[in-house]
Amino acid sequence: MRIKKGVNIFTSLVTAGVFVAIAPGSALAANDEPLTGGWAPSEWGADDMAGSVNTTTPRMVVKAARLVKRGKVATLGKIYAQDAPAFGSRGWRMTIPGLPTGGPFGNQELVYNDEYLSTEIGQIGTQFDGPGHIGVRTSKGDFFYNGRYLTDAGVSAYGMGPLGVEHVAKIGFVCRGVLLDAVALRGGQLPIPVEASPSDPGIITAEDVKTMIRKQGIAPIGEGDCVFLYTGHGNIWHPTNWDSYDAAEKTRRVAEFNSGEPGFGISACEYLASRKIILWGADTWASEAVGPGFAGETSQPFECHIKLMTKRGIWNLENMDLSQLVADKAYEFLFAWSPLKIKGGTGSPGNPVAMY
Amino acid sequence: MRIKKGVNIFTSLVTAGVFVAIAPGSALAANDEPLTGGWAPSEWGADDMAGSVNTTTPRMVVKAARLVKRGKVATLGKIYAQDAPAFGSRGWRMTIPGLPTGGPFGNQELVYNDEYLSTEIGQIGTQFDGPGHIGVRTSKGDFFYNGRYLTDAGVSAYGMGPLGVEHVAKIGFVCRGVLLDAVALRGGQLPIPVEASPSDPGIITAEDVKTMIRKQGIAPIGEGDCVFLYTGHGNIWHPTNWDSYDAAEKTRRVAEFNSGEPGFGISACEYLASRKIILWGADTWASEAVGPGFAGETSQPFECHIKLMTKRGIWNLENMDLSQLVADKAYEFLFAWSPLKIKGGTGSPGNPVAMY
Amino acid sequence: MRIKKGVNIFTSLVTAGVFVAIAPGSALAANDEPLTGGWAPSEWGADDMAGSVNTTTPRMVVKAARLVKRGKVATLGKIYAQDAPAFGSRGWRMTIPGLPTGGPFGNQELVYNDEYLSTEIGQIGTQFDGPGHIGVRTSKGDFFYNGRYLTDAGVSAYGMGPLGVEHVAKIGFVCRGVLLDAVALRGGQLPIPVEASPSDPGIITAEDVKTMIRKQGIAPIGEGDCVFLYTGHGNIWHPTNWDSYDAAEKTRRVAEFNSGEPGFGISACEYLASRKIILWGADTWASEAVGPGFAGETSQPFECHIKLMTKRGIWNLENMDLSQLVADKAYEFLFAWSPLKIKGGTGSPGNPVAMY
Amino acid sequence: MRIKKGVNIFTSLVTAGVFVAIAPGSALAANDEPLTGGWAPSEWGADDMAGSVNTTTPRMVVKAARLVKRGKVATLGKIYAQDAPAFGSRGWRMTIPGLPTGGPFGNQELVYNDEYLSTEIGQIGTQFDGPGHIGVRTSKGDFFYNGRYLTDAGVSAYGMGPLGVEHVAKIGFVCRGVLLDAVALRGGQLPIPVEASPSDPGIITAEDVKTMIRKQGIAPIGEGDCVFLYTGHGNIWHPTNWDSYDAAEKTRRVAEFNSGEPGFGISACEYLASRKIILWGADTWASEAVGPGFAGETSQPFECHIKLMTKRGIWNLENMDLSQLVADKAYEFLFAWSPLKIKGGTGSPGNPVAMY
Repeated sequence: MRIKKGVNIFTSLVTAGVFVAIAPGSALAANDEPLTGGWAPSEWGADDMAGSVNTTTPRMVVKAARLVKRGKVATLGKIYAQDAPAFGSRGWRMTIPGLPTGGPFGNQELVYNDEYLSTEIGQIGTQFDGPGHIGVRTSKGDFFYNGRYLTDAGVSAYGMGPLGVEHVAKIGFVCRGVLLDAVALRGGQLPIPVEASPSDPGIITAEDVKTMIRKQGIAPIGEGDCVFLYTGHGNIWHPTNWDSYDAAEKTRRVAEFNSGEPGFGISACEYLASRKIILWGADTWASEAVGPGFAGETSQPFECHIKLMTKRGIWNLENMDLSQLVADKAYEFLFAWSPLKIKGGTGSPGNPVAMY
Repeated sequence: MRIKKGVNIFTSLVTAGVFVAIAPGSALAANDEPLTGGWAPSEWGADDMAGSVNTTTPRMVVKAARLVKRGKVATLGKIYAQDAPAFGSRGWRMTIPGLPTGGPFGNQELVYNDEYLSTEIGQIGTQFDGPGHIGVRTSKGDFFYNGRYLTDAGVSAYGMGPLGVEHVAKIGFVCRGVLLDAVALRGGQLPIPVEASPSDPGIITAEDVKTMIRKQGIAPIGEGDCVFLYTGHGNIWHPTNWDSYDAAEKTRRVAEFNSGEPGFGISACEYLASRKIILWGADTWASEAVGPGFAGETSQPFECHIKLMTKRGIWNLENMDLSQLVADKAYEFLFAWSPLKIKGGTGSPGNPVAMY
Repeated sequence: MRIKKGVNIFTSLVTAGVFVAIAPGSALAANDEPLTGGWAPSEWGADDMAGSVNTTTPRMVVKAARLVKRGKVATLGKIYAQDAPAFGSRGWRMTIPGLPTGGPFGNQELVYNDEYLSTEIGQIGTQFDGPGHIGVRTSKGDFFYNGRYLTDAGVSAYGMGPLGVEHVAKIGFVCRGVLLDAVALRGGQLPIPVEASPSDPGIITAEDVKTMIRKQGIAPIGEGDCVFLYTGHGNIWHPTNWDSYDAAEKTRRVAEFNSGEPGFGISACEYLASRKIILWGADTWASEAVGPGFAGETSQPFECHIKLMTKRGIWNLENMDLSQLVADKAYEFLFAWSPLKIKGGTGSPGNPVAMY
Repeated sequence: MRIKKGVNIFTSLVTAGVFVAIAPGSALAANDEPLTGGWAPSEWGADDMAGSVNTTTPRMVVKAARLVKRGKVATLGKIYAQDAPAFGSRGWRMTIPGLPTGGPFGNQELVYNDEYLSTEIGQIGTQFDGPGHIGVRTSKGDFFYNGRYLTDAGVSAYGMGPLGVEHVAKIGFVCRGVLLDAVALRGGQLPIPVEASPSDPGIITAEDVKTMIRKQGIAPIGEGDCVFLYTGHGNIWHPTNWDSYDAAEKTRRVAEFNSGEPGFGISACEYLASRKIILWGADTWASEAVGPGFAGETSQPFECHIKLMTKRGIWNLENMDLSQLVADKAYEFLFAWSPLKIKGGTGSPGNPVAMY
């Protein structure tokens, strides 16, 4: 199946019958692989609520800090704004109450402004997916990281309880950041995949990962690393000149950006997991290949999400701005960042700092 | 004037006639010090929108990275939750749509959750104050950093335009972090000041700063540093055992926490500015002394806010959790963090990472 | 069991083990009365999405209009504001972006203001409960009016689909409004019930309803009527002088208001259903007796909610201001109102108009 | 100047230089007509906060109730939903926390749902404009109804204070509703005006109003009436079959709907004011002609808004669904409705009830 450029991936896949939202009471057999496949307890114990971020040792931290040589700093987050792309029904609304919001106070006549924001704070723009974001419907209920369920005590309409992102955020990510420059590998911006075979240029395989590491001349991916993929797809929603587009062009670009994405295929994700990385990310909205074909390297929608996060607790950072790292050929760097401690949040916004 | 413990500072000061909100059309003379005192253009030029964060050089970054010796990591943000303290009318509301929000999708029956949040995102909990937050009412209008006004092009009900926090967030803070342990200095949690004299134990003076540096055995505060004050006041809204309190105890503690705070006095803030630091912060909601007396070290409400931020572009990080740094006696460390790139935002939430 | 005045009913009942939130996967037997008791299809057919509002005939409308004799008008809604009582975790936040939000435009220099509101719009303050608000957990899923389930097509994280309030709102309520003055009956404001027996003065029984009708000298309750109960409990959160209270007094009153309520007992609700009324309401937050005793007249929490709404589609209007009607002894009147057509909403705010 | 169909009126007019937002400090002379023209105090006295709704007498109410002859009821509000048209940056976001939001409670296993909404509640969809919505920038500040200013005590970032809609909502509108069927007059849906002359078919003049009254065979417009104009423009955003359109068609229709509108011209508005009506409205988003030409009948943007509301306190109800009234040729009817008592709100949503 091929989908047209600029058509929303969800509209297409729903039409094609792939993304059927199945009601809980439906006849479809639940996916019990999490139960039979030994997904829980995780390697950090049945009580763990943080996942791969536990991997980091003081030695890794000291070693990563030594990557700061040039004294350069890059901020890896994108702009949060109402006209930025958002998945599905999500949105971003911000206003300034009062302008100024308060004052003047005292003889110095201080005035101040706040901003009032309504949004899916952990799931819009540059976003970190935490333990409560992705699960699998099983016959025992909706299964999340480390065998927790949406029916567990503490999970409610007001927060994810033991699946909240704050449990990850208390620890934080300090790691060797690795940039994989797939645009250099492919000789240009990667296309949205049109099939699910490993030869589709929009899909990055395990072999592609190894090839990039070799060509970029850096040490192999190892335990505790944070690995980020540059596909060029993020430039459709470009971080620097977005405001130069008119409304129609913005609308067109948002639609194209959302219509699918190049990215890691299953073999790459399994390889990254085997190397014991602690964070993966990309300049795309899902960090993995999303296209119409679901076989081989993308056998199901968001399969890397499930295999890395729900199964292994290796969280994900989406919609990163990797452009400065690419321009500087900063292929490895000190990455230091933590999600916000949002009690019961499913994820977090972010603007991580890279130093090299 | 003395105020009772547990009484909201604003209620008290409004009652006392100090915090009179003055209508624009009122007869009170405007505060024209920003116009006559040469506050604009800033030292980074008339076009600058970022302030002190411009100070950092590659050499400073490399030097700061060398502070990572033990390989330890601390996250300095507090928990964001509905029952955390908030100033004035601010609030935090978060819900989980659907639970799960979407799915199941595909044969793997993926489900996902979002969170929907409504809040003053840049001015609640652990918060960074950006260029658009604090200004001064002058006869030319409401004056903000670098001579910008609320009537400037781009400033609107939907965002702060050239005063937006994203202009700072594009650069980010990488610096030597300095912890000033005032609890060790005073021999216990600092009280809310009851007078404005330098001898009030709730007020940290320039001399106190120098004493702490000397006693802690670290190099003097220098250009490009980020300086954070530990007063113990933040433990009233304690970061670790908050959920163990019942609703009444939480309410009592929120009131006490908000009723004033110990912190930097004017002499300390002027000293920090003279040393060319790029960020200041504390475990309190305003990072400076707030009490009933307005003379001497706290001559007006939030005077350090005005003198450091509006006048000099040295931004501020409030409500930090400094407890791990204190426990580890980590008096200097690599601080690496950037606010979120919230287009037109007045500030940003945060969970900064310290490495040492 | 007795609960103390001013203690939140939910805190009390959760402590007492009555309001145990039971996880879907728990061992407790589901309540299958809706399945075995013939609750669906409703009397208006299996496709109906509106309920009792279908009852009204043109003849009833003309007859109700004839009740307008004095030419007086009363508005029956209360003030929506942040400091008004709200149930559980609900809240109300409103700000004015910009002040003014936009302009000036054109030579006339028009400026305008909007308000930005975040709230549980259909379930706060004066509120109408629609088809999607109250259901019963059965072995087939969460059962709502006319045999719809939360797993039905169209019900999602973004709206109630076929259970949305707009299906009622398209029709609207025009009826004979009947005021039952229980304060006159009891000789004073009704207390929160302390037991569940019919003799508790906080519980209005079927006999009490008939007595009030007789004493007030109006025709018996009949088909198509809208019946509203005045208990005086609503005066704790008084509609007229609320702003004269200080913050502590407001907090105390909100707690007392929420700690339980007098109101209709089961016998009264069954009687009203037998008379085929189309709307019930009161000056309280649930329109029925809520207290610690669950036997006899209040055998379970919110039993009238289930019996009138989920089972019969007779909706409910809560937190009404009936004070003017009481003062005018306006025991019957033309009631004309419709909820907002909120697509997928669970309820609606309101400020109904009574004419007499 | 002509604008193309489907192009947003604001984009066009801003481009054309008509809708220049003028900064407060700009050189443009303020519009001091409100000060020199005797706009304040209003005819209801300097303390009045409600405006024309004060006009109604018991005699008018009784007379209006006599218009209920057929026993028919029409609800005049439109559907509130995320994909409905909204002016400028306004938006509508609603989610269902939890699904269910709470429960199960008690042996009957009650579950319940709330909806969480973020929106400009008084200025979206079917909307009532209250005293705080429209003002004029004068040399004394932003002038609103009855000589109130945005700098008055009580007006803040959190509400309009004495300009709040609750002061109108306490009284409510009960009146003879008059439907003016301009589609019948013109022989089809009215076009968006392309010039400002009285002969433009998109503009309804005073003479047109009188002609419609005569042709429809009803009594002249008189004191206390509520007058609603049917232009057919509202059918672009059709009330009944909206969900049958795909996303692209909805987007196209929203753009067309917002790109301007037919409606009352100045002569009609002055005529309605002279007849002492208490409410005006239409099936459009501004109830008055909005097009590119500003001379004659539409000399400035939203001139009727200023002349009827800011000057005279005759409020306005926008985006009404008048289709059933038109189909029933219900040219006069009992109109009974009140805005919500939103403390400090600029307006209110609505779903008014018409009876005839």
